[in-house]
Amino acid sequence: MIKINFEINKENNIIRYQNRGMSLEQEINESNEYYLNNEIAIIYKKPTPINIVKCQENKISEAYFEAKSTTDYNGVYQGLYIDFEAKSTQSKTSFPIKNIQNNQFLHAKRIFKALGVSFFIIEFSKLNRYFILPTKLLLYFIKVNKSSSIPLSFFIKECIEINRKINPPLDYLSLIKDHLDLFLM
Amino acid sequence: MIKINFEINKENNIIRYQNRGMSLEQEINESNEYYLNNEIAIIYKKPTPINIVKCQENKISEAYFEAKSTTDYNGVYQGLYIDFEAKSTQSKTSFPIKNIQNNQFLHAKRIFKALGVSFFIIEFSKLNRYFILPTKLLLYFIKVNKSSSIPLSFFIKECIEINRKINPPLDYLSLIKDHLDLFLM
Repeated sequence: MIKINFEINKENNIIRYQNRGMSLEQEINESNEYYLNNEIAIIYKKPTPINIVKCQENKISEAYFEAKSTTDYNGVYQGLYIDFEAKSTQSKTSFPIKNIQNNQFLHAKRIFKALGVSFFIIEFSKLNRYFILPTKLLLYFIKVNKSSSIPLSFFIKECIEINRKINPPLDYLSLIKDHLDLFLM
Repeated sequence: MIKINFEINKENNIIRYQNRGMSLEQEINESNEYYLNNEIAIIYKKPTPINIVKCQENKISEAYFEAKSTTDYNGVYQGLYIDFEAKSTQSKTSFPIKNIQNNQFLHAKRIFKALGVSFFIIEFSKLNRYFILPTKLLLYFIKVNKSSSIPLSFFIKECIEINRKINPPLDYLSLIKDHLDLFLM
């Protein structure tokens, strides 16, 4: 469920209240809409692939969800190929790597090798903190550590924190250009 | 319908016969699979978005196709953002621009402005000829000409012809790097 909190200011305008309670997906979709409308970038969420069994003209009467072989979001920003997946954890101390599905991990590794900008947006929902985890750093973490979880300290020290704003709620793209070395080989 | 013609050679191996009769979509999908398996590029066809009305667990019992707001294919090749749509015409003399839907045209223009590599693959099916039409050239053609169709001569003179091969059937990516000026601003 998407909850949007707001307050009314002195001029009687409705002000969205810090986007508290919006789902991570909703925050990313709103940010992408902002990027599109302001000609900053074109990033779309890919539809979930569906296996259609019965269909008459435009109406589908039997179909099943299929597993995605890629990440959720991709697009272009100032000539850069952008590709990412969003994940949320309720943990206050670490992000369990198993939250990233095998096919998503494989895809992210391929994109990194093909010189795309590949990353994960990780939300620590209980802490209201958001981080960009570049696939390059994820691969580095897995190589160096035996741990099945990435501690919050790694995100704070090595990754890029996104500070939530009003509009766009999660301005992740503005942070990428200044940290390209964290993304590319 | 997809028809695949083949012949059996002296060693009793089945040899696909020049891919004759394969649909354009099938040829592109096979090429993309080749690129993926050979670590050349990661290009996927986006699933058609579907509006789900009734759904229980994994089974969808009522849904409708939605209009796409983007082109069919996108991905990454040597750091370049690749974005295109495939169109086939039965005409032997020209390609009708109205075959490109408004939302696809708008999307292609946006990608071009965002420094992505945006183009259309046009098949003249009766002639067995395939061309890459860069969005940059399409915009140029529309600006300069009042015509509602792009003549074959424009494709031959200004665009990039793809010669069909066995594997990958349509090696469109190898032609892009040498003609980047036709795609980028």
